Amino acid sequence: MAKIKLIIDTDPGIDDAMAILAAFNSPEVEIIGLTTIFGNVPVAEGSCDQLNGLTKTRVADFVHGAEGFGNTYQQLVEGKKHSLTAAQFIANAASEHPGEVVVLALGPVTNIALAYKVDPQLRTRLKEVVILGGAFQSNGNVNPAAEANILGDPDAADYVMEQGNNVRLVSLDVTHQVEFTSKDMDALHGRGRFGSFISDISKFYIEYYRKSYGVDSCFVHDPTAFAAVFRPDLFTWQAGKVLVLTEGVARGMTIMDHCVRNWAAPHAWSDRPLVQVAVAVQADKVAPMLLERLAM
Amino acid sequence: MAKIKLIIDTDPGIDDAMAILAAFNSPEVEIIGLTTIFGNVPVAEGSCDQLNGLTKTRVADFVHGAEGFGNTYQQLVEGKKHSLTAAQFIANAASEHPGEVVVLALGPVTNIALAYKVDPQLRTRLKEVVILGGAFQSNGNVNPAAEANILGDPDAADYVMEQGNNVRLVSLDVTHQVEFTSKDMDALHGRGRFGSFISDISKFYIEYYRKSYGVDSCFVHDPTAFAAVFRPDLFTWQAGKVLVLTEGVARGMTIMDHCVRNWAAPHAWSDRPLVQVAVAVQADKVAPMLLERLAM
Repeated sequence: MAKIKLIIDTDPGIDDAMAILAAFNSPEVEIIGLTTIFGNVPVAEGSCDQLNGLTKTRVADFVHGAEGFGNTYQQLVEGKKHSLTAAQFIANAASEHPGEVVVLALGPVTNIALAYKVDPQLRTRLKEVVILGGAFQSNGNVNPAAEANILGDPDAADYVMEQGNNVRLVSLDVTHQVEFTSKDMDALHGRGRFGSFISDISKFYIEYYRKSYGVDSCFVHDPTAFAAVFRPDLFTWQAGKVLVLTEGVARGMTIMDHCVRNWAAPHAWSDRPLVQVAVAVQADKVAPMLLERLAM
Repeated sequence: MAKIKLIIDTDPGIDDAMAILAAFNSPEVEIIGLTTIFGNVPVAEGSCDQLNGLTKTRVADFVHGAEGFGNTYQQLVEGKKHSLTAAQFIANAASEHPGEVVVLALGPVTNIALAYKVDPQLRTRLKEVVILGGAFQSNGNVNPAAEANILGDPDAADYVMEQGNNVRLVSLDVTHQVEFTSKDMDALHGRGRFGSFISDISKFYIEYYRKSYGVDSCFVHDPTAFAAVFRPDLFTWQAGKVLVLTEGVARGMTIMDHCVRNWAAPHAWSDRPLVQVAVAVQADKVAPMLLERLAM
């Protein structure tokens, strides 16, 4: 089977690192690019602004640590930065490999929205956009209405929801079911290329969940979204029309028309395309699979 | 056991009639008053305006028929109208029987909000307010965000949610699980005092559900809310903080903080009191029980 050509758009943080490292250890995918977006901690590349031109001020350093790796202060590496913007890079890749490229969006979807704007044909050229974001049947994680990635740029998210039928959403409804326990993280130490690194940076992250949810584990949002890229069969998908609130106290809320009835009158969802929303996950299979990838 | 002193605040319609007639056939309750509110069809009494002073224009005659009884044009009856407003009547009753009065709100909650405003002590004097309204885990019935009763007066609903801990919400999440089939309605004909009447008026109502949901039955929202008054044990209740959106495309949406985590920062729900939300119903017990009451 041909490998999935994957671009990971990421807002560096602890579970982002887990997802990226799991992806590097996954033979099902070929990572053709990493693009960056503001989010968990400040980053230099990609868009630092929301689609509406404002700069996001909420930074989740209380979740991921000041440098994004649980205050473990890893050695900096030197890497070469691509000359294109993230949006242009995505558009070009889809143009070079029509129908083959999957974008995994792990942060606010500003770059994805900009890519759609850069290239009106992107919609038909991308194989899939898998977005970690939103909350439908459960509360958000910033407030009862809003999930952090979508709230990072609600205008961009709403714009992306208007684009099309190759969009998949992996929301808190499912990511809050996939956990790594502190025991899992202890066992990972010393294993494979990344085990000790993941184990080390997860301590701060688990501490956040201990305080916030009273659990001795962490939800692995980003790795779960990555799992949805190459093992969509481990999720239950429902087609719906999604709208993102861009104003008011519930700004950032994702609301889906489940499309189970005929409405008496048209409404704001009526003309939206269907997107696929993960409504259930086989967490007992996804968590061990991801742990295995991280121990390789 | 002492009977529940019940005031039914109703926006006359087909399932309202079912709820009221079931209540008259229920030994567990003593109906001490009926108050009226705009809603399914135009009515003369109670508040005709929303709390914000505007007049509601959406009338669900396509659900309940032009006169509210499925276009069966029943004989009009002469009754005596109480001299008090609905709000004052509710406040007086609670003052006379502190801790004993339950208000069952089957329409927009304008009268309930006005009653709280009339008497600041009402909060502590009412035994309970059981509200048919909202949608949490499921779509609304006017649009994906909004349920009809709450959308009828979102400001009033939000105000009531701010009042307190003796509020119970029976939303579409549970009422969409309790159905009377057309077979049930045929079987009701000729039985008891109200059987034929209910059977007749339900035809139009079932036709609406056939067109809207493709089912040969009707959801019995109002009777289910009545069941929650005298058999709360047939429902699963969850305590949460509820906010109603009063603006934007999702106006009328009910959003609950499930209170399962500690939030990193305060938000619009933080200072709200807990209300009880029905999250599950034993429909296999509630539907037959209600049918039995209507056949008496």
